[in-house]
Amino acid sequence: MSNRLVRWLAVSMVTLFPLAAAAAEPRASARIASPDTRIAVEVTTDNEGRASYAVSRDGRPVVAPSRLGMMFTDTRKFERNLAIVDQRTRRHDERWELPWGERRHMRDHHNELRVTLAETSGPERRFDVVFRVFDDGVGFRYDIPRQPGLEHLSIAEELTEFDLADPATAWWIPAFEWNREEYIYHRTPVEEVGQAQTPITLRTADGLHVSIHEAALVDYSGMNLARVDGRRFKAALTPGIGIAKVEVATPFATPWRTIQIGERAGDLVESQLILNLNAPNALGDVSWIRPMKYVGIWWEMHLDRKTWASGPKHGATTAHTLRYIDFAAANGFGGVLVEGWNIGWDGDWFGNGETFSFTQAYPDFDIEAVTRHAREKGVTLIGHHETSGHAAHYEAQLEDAMDLYGRLGVQAVKTGYVADAGQAKVRGDDGALHYAWHEGQAMVRHHQKVVETAAKHRITVNPHEPVKDTGLRRTYPNLVTREGARGMEYNAWGQPGNPPEHEATLVYTRLLAGPMDFTPGIFGMDTKSGTPMATTIGKQLALYVVIHSPLQMAADLLEHYESRPDAFQFIRDVPADWDDTRALAGEIGEFAVIARRARGGDDWYLGAVTDDAARDITVPLDFLEPGRRYTAQIYRDGEGAGWRTDPRSLVIESREVGAGDTLVLAMASGGGQAVRFVAR
Amino acid sequence: MSNRLVRWLAVSMVTLFPLAAAAAEPRASARIASPDTRIAVEVTTDNEGRASYAVSRDGRPVVAPSRLGMMFTDTRKFERNLAIVDQRTRRHDERWELPWGERRHMRDHHNELRVTLAETSGPERRFDVVFRVFDDGVGFRYDIPRQPGLEHLSIAEELTEFDLADPATAWWIPAFEWNREEYIYHRTPVEEVGQAQTPITLRTADGLHVSIHEAALVDYSGMNLARVDGRRFKAALTPGIGIAKVEVATPFATPWRTIQIGERAGDLVESQLILNLNAPNALGDVSWIRPMKYVGIWWEMHLDRKTWASGPKHGATTAHTLRYIDFAAANGFGGVLVEGWNIGWDGDWFGNGETFSFTQAYPDFDIEAVTRHAREKGVTLIGHHETSGHAAHYEAQLEDAMDLYGRLGVQAVKTGYVADAGQAKVRGDDGALHYAWHEGQAMVRHHQKVVETAAKHRITVNPHEPVKDTGLRRTYPNLVTREGARGMEYNAWGQPGNPPEHEATLVYTRLLAGPMDFTPGIFGMDTKSGTPMATTIGKQLALYVVIHSPLQMAADLLEHYESRPDAFQFIRDVPADWDDTRALAGEIGEFAVIARRARGGDDWYLGAVTDDAARDITVPLDFLEPGRRYTAQIYRDGEGAGWRTDPRSLVIESREVGAGDTLVLAMASGGGQAVRFVAR
Repeated sequence: MSNRLVRWLAVSMVTLFPLAAAAAEPRASARIASPDTRIAVEVTTDNEGRASYAVSRDGRPVVAPSRLGMMFTDTRKFERNLAIVDQRTRRHDERWELPWGERRHMRDHHNELRVTLAETSGPERRFDVVFRVFDDGVGFRYDIPRQPGLEHLSIAEELTEFDLADPATAWWIPAFEWNREEYIYHRTPVEEVGQAQTPITLRTADGLHVSIHEAALVDYSGMNLARVDGRRFKAALTPGIGIAKVEVATPFATPWRTIQIGERAGDLVESQLILNLNAPNALGDVSWIRPMKYVGIWWEMHLDRKTWASGPKHGATTAHTLRYIDFAAANGFGGVLVEGWNIGWDGDWFGNGETFSFTQAYPDFDIEAVTRHAREKGVTLIGHHETSGHAAHYEAQLEDAMDLYGRLGVQAVKTGYVADAGQAKVRGDDGALHYAWHEGQAMVRHHQKVVETAAKHRITVNPHEPVKDTGLRRTYPNLVTREGARGMEYNAWGQPGNPPEHEATLVYTRLLAGPMDFTPGIFGMDTKSGTPMATTIGKQLALYVVIHSPLQMAADLLEHYESRPDAFQFIRDVPADWDDTRALAGEIGEFAVIARRARGGDDWYLGAVTDDAARDITVPLDFLEPGRRYTAQIYRDGEGAGWRTDPRSLVIESREVGAGDTLVLAMASGGGQAVRFVAR
Repeated sequence: MSNRLVRWLAVSMVTLFPLAAAAAEPRASARIASPDTRIAVEVTTDNEGRASYAVSRDGRPVVAPSRLGMMFTDTRKFERNLAIVDQRTRRHDERWELPWGERRHMRDHHNELRVTLAETSGPERRFDVVFRVFDDGVGFRYDIPRQPGLEHLSIAEELTEFDLADPATAWWIPAFEWNREEYIYHRTPVEEVGQAQTPITLRTADGLHVSIHEAALVDYSGMNLARVDGRRFKAALTPGIGIAKVEVATPFATPWRTIQIGERAGDLVESQLILNLNAPNALGDVSWIRPMKYVGIWWEMHLDRKTWASGPKHGATTAHTLRYIDFAAANGFGGVLVEGWNIGWDGDWFGNGETFSFTQAYPDFDIEAVTRHAREKGVTLIGHHETSGHAAHYEAQLEDAMDLYGRLGVQAVKTGYVADAGQAKVRGDDGALHYAWHEGQAMVRHHQKVVETAAKHRITVNPHEPVKDTGLRRTYPNLVTREGARGMEYNAWGQPGNPPEHEATLVYTRLLAGPMDFTPGIFGMDTKSGTPMATTIGKQLALYVVIHSPLQMAADLLEHYESRPDAFQFIRDVPADWDDTRALAGEIGEFAVIARRARGGDDWYLGAVTDDAARDITVPLDFLEPGRRYTAQIYRDGEGAGWRTDPRSLVIESREVGAGDTLVLAMASGGGQAVRFVAR
């Protein structure tokens, strides 16, 4: 440990210096390469003055020349008659530390090209496009200076294109549908993508893995991709609440558009590009942020055994909560989520978020007593604010709500925005209520406000039905996790549940964006529909490693854990915070093998999940510390296991291993495997 | 002739009567079939109260269950919690007459289903969806009554879907790109369509031909189709100039969404569905509307021999125009187009439409003298109003501009909206200038205003860079033709010109919407780029029949016609108005054979075009009047003809034929054939 830290500190200095002098004369093109010179970006203008960028790797095109530009509602677009009037480059190599996360030590090593494009006729406006080229991909953004006639941007659309050079298979979910982000992933040729959300992940015909996403989505609209024709995509910003999709004052820099590139699927998992493109911690001291596992009054509602609403089946009662707190304390869990504690659940709350109070508990929930007991047990309540998408109503109570939780020692809050896409509600600058999309600028601003308000009260935030993750946890470390994909509750509902390949797809799609509160750990396999869940207990355990979340739930009913202490031991042991992460093996939508080292510890954990196919995957254990011995505590699918056959069959066994060994991970259909490597 | 008329009148009565009594009780589904019972529509609601429609033909699905609904900016969407609370059906069989067009006698024969959907919770609003099912397809629209809280609709998006049941090949052009409608058509599997304009044309795996479009686009935004996934498309309305895509008062009925279905590609061409779904003539006496052929000062500008701007190469001079008028009169043409006659062309007019005057001629263009000479010769000037998309600037002069033309006896005006997509300019209700899309509601309103103002002055309108055609010529017969696709000028420019299959694609795509001012008739095959045009003279002649336009240009330089009097004779003979039209043979993007009977005459004309492949197409002449003899004047590709080899090779020959004969149409690569059948 200490050796590693010393080695890291030795090179942990920021180095910034120009790569080349700025070009004196306008030129038709500009170029920059990654530090290892393998990835290159070229910016060009054509004879009509349209600007494009292209990305290549080892001299082969990855993104063919693709247009740049922006369209406004109140002034002529940036698109034609552009010339490159300036270009500046610089090198950047910086080490920094994540206060919590999938790894501790980060390196931001890139070369930057700043291209200034100016109109050659008409208003003669100018804007910069800034490219940062890393060894594992490219980020770029528009940086628009304040200038006469452009004091304000009313953006109708970004004209950014992504024209993929090679045939590829794409994994994606549709944009602008009625749901938000909770779809089963499509796997299609790239030419069959329609309108997609990001991240979209691609595997090219010659095996390159590419993910297109964005970083640092602040005060802007979320970007989707609309395929125009062939393999050419256009940015499609989420609609705003006014005529423009985005309204901002200049100077303004957009979020980064990111293109991660790796040879293995796992290279995308290990990429630090998204976080590197976010701004450093803006909160100062964040030592109060505590990654943790939690249990909660939740799964029983999805099975209709309890209700959010008051009445005889009300889940969030004082007594029931105390039972959860005691369980959490006894098993080393940090938190207890309680949903349905507050007034507002009794009517038709869907789409009627104005019914919710965020400070008034139901009479059968003694919040003072519950939180007092929790504090005494060293456990925190995980608060819950379901808004049904009515962000304006929530904001009106936000300060009071966070103040209440802060006063009661509640360290985390799960927020919820259950409303159909486009049906959230925000208050505009005009004071009126507006319908809004979950990923439009207004909701981006709303989430920012929640996170900043929560931070003042030393509360971490876990939004469900959120804005997609773009790495903002670097800047706001209390934005610890979020939902934003089909989670475990779809398996409770069935009709259909998540397919067996779901988790092995998430690893290389949604999870590239950041942590997810997927809520794993279901041992009882009952579903409302009676259709079987596409999982085994082995997979449920593996998900604690495969899916990183600093708030990691053990989602099942307590009695199911009590009846399976053998399997539950892994959930007790596994941490929710890591020093290092390795994507050992995997193929998108087929299987994934992830290893992580506990934050501040020497133990490694491994999780492996598979799709419908049973698999034996052999992995070298060379991630372990050389020369050291470990006890591998193996939780694997047992005899006859399989999601259709016997999801509960599990074998637990131990082996002594070292870095020179290999491990064969035998997984059943829909199954998985979890391993704890205890350092000796 | 007279026999035909008598037969038509005998059944030319409107018959409207209910098909079945309205259902008394809410039901989960409603159904209607076409008069021949082969096409059926079923409307259903699911267990979440989402409404869908499906279309089948002969019991086989054509459109799988596809959602209905609408999303608003200021109130909850119509989409969930809907129940069918009423359904009414009726039969309709009506004969009516087109004052000009591709046929005279029309029959509107359909069964109608009006479904009333009401919300079962929340605001309990209601709206109707009206389906009209013809033997050749389906039209449907939303009809929203005035009701409390819905006095006004601020439509964010239509949620209408089109989920195609079968694999198909699609012919389409992209939507929301920088250009408007001028693209080379894509031919892809339907699963590879991105965002498409309508009409989009499909041929299913089992050979059915389907076209999705709209009818009666009035006070609404043009509909595009965004493919979501698989073969499922969603309506994507063109953006508006405010927060909503459409702003209207209730009661309001949307344009009709149309699904034309035919066994042969030619069935789509012969379909009367679009016109039948438009409202009857709103202008009263339209006997002043005169279909005609015209020549003009135009092609020479595209070849850079003349300029729109003033100066030594100015095209629109008095002397030059007089020459055109004399030529037109001598050859039986009705009109002479003059572009560049008015002040405003000298600066950078692109995107700067405010430079144009629509009443002030350049000094070298004596508009009084020119129009006087034209009137004396029985010819009309075809006026020209290029706006560069600045509709607001045009509207400010509209009355004066039309008054000037009306006073001078100008019977037609070609308007132009050369601006990039989204860069037109309109004045909003707030009095401010707004950027607008060419097919958004504001521009739809603008074109309506132009057409109505022109009608007052008995002027016909021919918009270029228009709103797409949706059959409004039935309601406003002075809206005679328009552009709205890549026309002949792309062949002047080259790099690339229109591909050889372009016209054989247009017939089954763009031209399904209505007439097009394609401007055929190029004999001189010079291009600016030096690349050859993908045509022969035979094809140029054929286009006068293949492409219907009541304003039909002979676009070439006059000297080219003077040097080829043999070929030119066909252009002199061919009419621009028809009593009947038959699509004799053809496959989308391969070839097309169209026959039309002259309006008020007994002569038939036939045009055939092919793509890159030379073809011999045998057609029976059974469209000719039985027992009658005709002299077939045949203009066919000659020895060695072909667009790459010898585009000018043409053979003209005559044969005596009758309805029992067949004709073999031998076409060269990129070629075509024109035939006049002179009745004896």
